[in-house]
Parts: sequence; C-alpha cells; structure tokens
Amino acid sequence: MSILKGAAIFGQSGGPTSVINSSAAGVITEALKQDCITKVYGMAHGIRGALDEQFYDMSKEDPKQFELMKTTPSSALGSVRYKLAKAEDDETDYLRLLEVFKKYDIRYFFYNGGNDSMDTCNKISKFMQKSGYEMRVMGVPKTIDNDLFGTDHCPGYGSAAKYIATSTMEVYHDARVYDKGMITILEIMGRNAGWLAASASIASWKGCGPDLIYLPEKAFDMEDFLNKVEAIYKKNKNCIVAVSEGIKDKDGKYISEYGSDLAQSKDAFGHSQLGGLAVTLANFCKNRTGAKVRGIEFSLLQRCAAHCGSKNDVDEAFLSGQEAVKAAVSGITDHMVAFERDMSSGSYVCKTKLLNLSEVANTEKTVPLSWIKNDDTGLTQDFIDYVLPLIQGESKPPMVDGVPQFAKLKKVLV
Amino acid sequence: MSILKGAAIFGQSGGPTSVINSSAAGVITEALKQDCITKVYGMAHGIRGALDEQFYDMSKEDPKQFELMKTTPSSALGSVRYKLAKAEDDETDYLRLLEVFKKYDIRYFFYNGGNDSMDTCNKISKFMQKSGYEMRVMGVPKTIDNDLFGTDHCPGYGSAAKYIATSTMEVYHDARVYDKGMITILEIMGRNAGWLAASASIASWKGCGPDLIYLPEKAFDMEDFLNKVEAIYKKNKNCIVAVSEGIKDKDGKYISEYGSDLAQSKDAFGHSQLGGLAVTLANFCKNRTGAKVRGIEFSLLQRCAAHCGSKNDVDEAFLSGQEAVKAAVSGITDHMVAFERDMSSGSYVCKTKLLNLSEVANTEKTVPLSWIKNDDTGLTQDFIDYVLPLIQGESKPPMVDGVPQFAKLKKVLV
Repeated sequence: MSILKGAAIFGQSGGPTSVINSSAAGVITEALKQDCITKVYGMAHGIRGALDEQFYDMSKEDPKQFELMKTTPSSALGSVRYKLAKAEDDETDYLRLLEVFKKYDIRYFFYNGGNDSMDTCNKISKFMQKSGYEMRVMGVPKTIDNDLFGTDHCPGYGSAAKYIATSTMEVYHDARVYDKGMITILEIMGRNAGWLAASASIASWKGCGPDLIYLPEKAFDMEDFLNKVEAIYKKNKNCIVAVSEGIKDKDGKYISEYGSDLAQSKDAFGHSQLGGLAVTLANFCKNRTGAKVRGIEFSLLQRCAAHCGSKNDVDEAFLSGQEAVKAAVSGITDHMVAFERDMSSGSYVCKTKLLNLSEVANTEKTVPLSWIKNDDTGLTQDFIDYVLPLIQGESKPPMVDGVPQFAKLKKVLV
Repeated sequence: MSILKGAAIFGQSGGPTSVINSSAAGVITEALKQDCITKVYGMAHGIRGALDEQFYDMSKEDPKQFELMKTTPSSALGSVRYKLAKAEDDETDYLRLLEVFKKYDIRYFFYNGGNDSMDTCNKISKFMQKSGYEMRVMGVPKTIDNDLFGTDHCPGYGSAAKYIATSTMEVYHDARVYDKGMITILEIMGRNAGWLAASASIASWKGCGPDLIYLPEKAFDMEDFLNKVEAIYKKNKNCIVAVSEGIKDKDGKYISEYGSDLAQSKDAFGHSQLGGLAVTLANFCKNRTGAKVRGIEFSLLQRCAAHCGSKNDVDEAFLSGQEAVKAAVSGITDHMVAFERDMSSGSYVCKTKLLNLSEVANTEKTVPLSWIKNDDTGLTQDFIDYVLPLIQGESKPPMVDGVPQFAKLKKVLV
C-alpha cells in the first residue's frame, strides 16, 4: 500500500434523509484524524460546489457540531441534483473538476448519495483514472428508497421505515374513531422500488396497519383495487391503504396521472415529478363507495423525521462514512461502502463490505416479488424478518426548550 | 355534600388527539377507585353509544391497558360527531338518554371533548336538571385547537404544538438543501383559531422555521401574500410558509376554495370540510415565481403523533380526567375542568379550576391579535412565553420491536 498525501473533499447529493448527516459526520471526523489527509473540504451542494470552487473548510467547525450532525436531518452541506454528461460526450465538467482538484491538491473524493450520486461518483472515478490523476474515490451509500444494488440495505431506510411504521400505526388509531367509517389512503415515497411503502406492513403485522398495500413492483389495476376497497369498507366500515407514489398500471402509466390535474414536470434526471396520488385514489374511492375519504401524503416528513430515528440506522450511517475514509486511506479507490447482515451469532450484526462503483451505479434493487402477498394485503414474514433489525433502537436529537437541537455549521468558505 | 351512589358513564367526542386517551385513563382509573361509583361504563362512540345502549364495562379491562392509554393516540372508545337538537325543539334524544340512565342507574356523566362536545354536555346537564333526575355532569376538556373558552390551554394542544414545531424544524432543514431553492407551504389544522399554526413560530424562534405564518384571526390577502413570498424567494432562494387551514379573505371566503376543485361538503355541525389549501397556495406561488413548490399537509399526523408527545400535556390530560371525577364525587355538577397557570414560583405550574358548562359551550377562544406580528412573519415573544411550558417533557409509548406499543381494550359490552 502506498501512502497518498493530499486534501479530501466530501459532498452530499440527491434527496436528503434523516441520517445523511450522520454519514457526513463519519467521513469528516475520520478524515480529520488521518495524517495523510492534509485538509478536509465539504462541497456546497455536492458536485456543484466542487465545480464552482464553493467548499468549506471542515477543520474550522466546532467538533460538537459533528456530534449534533448525527441526529440532524437533511444535508447540512447542501445537496444537488446535477447529472454529469458522459465524458465521451462532453469533458467540460470533468476537466474543470481536474483543475480544481489539482489546484487544492485534492486526492480523496467522498460522495454520499443514492443511485444517481453513485453514477456521478463512478464517472469521476473513471475519468480521473484515465487522466492519470492519482485520486481515491469512494461512495458512501444513502437513500431512504433502499434501492441501491449489492448492499443488504441503505443508510436512511431504517429511520424512514421506522417513521412510516410508527405514523401508520398512529393514523390507524385516528382514522377509525367515528361510527361512520372512513377510507384512508397513505401515500409513501418510492418511485420504482416499494421498500418504503412495504414498511407500512410492519404496522399491519402489529395489528394496526393498512388493509391493502400497493408497491410499484406490481402493476396496479384500478378496478381490482376499488373492488377490494369496497368489500373491506362494507365489511369493516373502515379501510386503510398504503401506496407507493410510483405505482403504475399495466401499460406503465402512473396512477397519480389518472384524473390528476397537477402539472407533470420532470426533474434533471428525467424522472417525472409525482404528487397528488393519495387525493386521486381517495376521490376514486369516494366515487365508488360514497364513503368519507382522506388522502394523507407523508411527503418530506418521512425522510427528515430525525426525532423518530432508528438508532441502528444512525450508527450504521456513521460507520459507512468512517469506513469509506479508512478504505481510501488504506489504498482502495473506485468503490462504495455497502452492508451485509451477519446473523451467525443468532442476532443481527451489520458488517461493511466494498462494492465496485460500476456495479452500483444506476442499478436499482426492488422488493422481491415473492415477498409481496398476492392478495395485496401486504408483505410476507420474510420482509418483516428483513426489516425489523433496521428499525431497532431509538435515536433522537438532544431536546432543548421542548424541541430538537440541530447542528449549525459555520460553513467557512475556502 | 351529599353522597350520590350510582354508575358512571364516560365518553369521548369530536376529533381525537394524541392525549384524549390519557384523560380517559384519568377518568376511568379515578372512577373505579370511588366507593360511591358502582359501575364505570365507557360509551362506544360518545353520546351515540349512550343512545344506542352500546357501552363497555370498564372494570373488565386489564389495568395495564389504562397505563398504556396514556400514550395511545386517538379515542380508544370511539368518537362521534353528533349534534343534539335543542331540547325545546325536540326532546327525543334527551328522553332516550334519561331512559338509559334510569335503567342502569347512571348518576355520573363525564364527557371528553371540545366546543361541540361541551355543548352536548351542557344540554344534557340542563335537561337532567329540569327533569329532576339527579346526576352529576362534568366536562373534560380536549382539543388540539386550543380554542376552549376560559381555560389557559386545552389538553391535546401541547402535544400537537410540539409535533408541529418539531416537524417544521425538520422540514425546514429538508426544504432548503438544493441550490435551486423551493417554496414550501405547510398546512396546519385550525378552522377559526390559529393556535396550531402559531406553534410553527416556535421553529422560527429557534432559527429554523417559516418565513411567514398566516392564522385565521386575520383576513388573508392573496396579492399581499404573493408579493411577500416573491420578495423572500428572490432574496433567499427559499421560502417556507405556515398556514392555518381556515384562513379566509376579507369577504370571508376560504382561501382553500380559491381554485380548489375539491368538493366542499359540510359535516354534521355545519362546518365546511376544508382541504387542499397547501396545494392551492403552492400553485399560486408557482405561477407567480416559477419556483419549485411543495405543499405539505400535516393532516391527521399532527393530532395522533403520540411518539412525539409533550409530557406536560399527557400528565395534564390525565389530571383533568381525575379532577372531573373527584369534583363530581364531591358534589359538583354542570362544570368543565379547566387549567390555569401559576407562575408564582418562578416556573410553570398547571392548576385546575372549574368553569360553568354554559360559559364554555360554543364559545371559541382565538389567538390575541396583539400576539400576531403585523408583517405576517409570525408570533410575538408573548406567544412563545405562553406556549413553551405546554410542550415541555418527552412522552412516547413503550417501544416493542422498534415501534410503539399501544393500548388494546377488550371492550366488553354491557
């Protein structure tokens, strides 16, 4: 192994989670400890900050803030959705990055995000290799969607799943108090992978969850859905349904587009901006049954509820950041830190491993079809066994004046 | 004082809260202790259960469940929205109640709810007095809206305020991560009183809250709102606004009806069913600024989030239930338990007092106009000083398997 001396730069990218700052704290505190890392920079708004030479000197921060970051939701350094062109098509951004890296002698690049961010990370890694610029590039996983390939699970998912399960149990109690009954539709994030909506089945497993759960992994049939809702409503007076925002019919049309008058715009990655699904489905149910209906969208709440975090998730997020730095310092590059579960002791232990960035980039891991019950009533015990360890332990920020205390960085620009 | 021997009946009414079951536990456990109370019944779905002779024998429950009820959201016995006719107009329901009360020798009537429920309670009390049927009728306050007259605050408000402040601080962090900026509209419950939306100002006071807050106490002007949002967005790239669902323009038209295509139905009390305000305002902001926008409705989540409860609120809710029973047993009738704050020791102490039911019924307490800042940026320090004691202390259910354990009553029908 060769010792590589130079500065490190770290960035956060994509949709934030309630634990992405825990990963950041893991990377930053570990990098600050390393003798071979001369400076630790934090990119303002991910790769955008590197391109624009907008980055912060992390050694200027009070170390207490790194401790608070473990329980501060969202991306403290700012995030970005910026897709790098393929280097074959347009080298502009890559040449600019190379220029910045050389100027500040940046030799370590850590990037924290999901599929799209690992794509960015992979492209940069390959370009720098090709250019002969010695650099260690490591991905740190993050996504509430839990859809990264090759890892048992992703930091951010456990806390979001815990929040969704908890809130669903609470709404279950609220949504069935009246003698008149109600149909409630819970809209949960998840474009192509239904891991988040699946977590509502924890509530059902506890006896107070949705009657029906729909994931994007299976084509959605409106008529079949309405028949099922009507039957449950007639029998029980109440019906609760959890749906992934990304459910589509057999022709690939988003259900949120059925009768939704919301403008369908696309983001920088070409994803449709979804929304209004809960209200759309609630209206269909009202038309069919005449019932009182309510559509509830967990919206941003599900990905920033640090007050209801999973301790396991927060700890693992920190660990993944630390491990990325340790691996890079030990000579490894072009990889992402991933998790594997070890049950050999009889209880859950989370271990890290490394995956090639090219393997991870742009590959989505969806919920196994065999874990989705055929009758749409939820997930099988296999899923429950999978998810439970990820939501264990209570994590919340320190409370001051009855509300959370969150990290506040000085963000001293270099 | 005369000892009145007989059965007690208790009911929950109106929209549930995360602490109404704590009040129920207070009433039930205290009533079960009293020698003069021969039986303790719980009405299924409030007054509907009394009319239909559908009530549960609370002595059949495992006492452990009463402990769990303190942290179980919503109305464990079921709630109802049923408006009693004026006795002068139609005595049917009252005569039926009298019949049921006589049949079961029910001499204690405890009713837990907000304005409408205190109206019910008051009407029953007055009718029984007129009929010469000896009965002690006591109201137990409850409403997240905090709009009951004559009491410093209402059980349920503190926990909802804590949840709203916490979630708003979290959303604040999430809603400003991107370099492109966003306008976020938070829709908070509150038809005529803005206490709940006001609690979002705790987040602003902490430095991570809404830029603008609109309560129903002040007429809303769309043009002025859009001008302010546009100015803030241009300056900061981000703008967060908290609004009460019930905001109206100077002509009394609900803002949610501006361009909202949602069916406007009315509930049994003649209130308009509101909804879609966040999306409506977000669309107005998008049209004006071209910004990315997001409307977030806290919906039922804000009133059932027992996992983020205020310990003070939970304890006070329990206390108000206990005190209602103690007062009734001591000979008092026709009153509601209320709170007053005692700051004479230098710190907050919550004491109970009793209010005449006729004073409380149908009178709404709104936020003092002098507490609302003229420039719509939030609430004054007076409000912060008022609200802070109400959100102190952490209450959450016991956690099993990483999610809350909630009470489950046997509900043995009499």
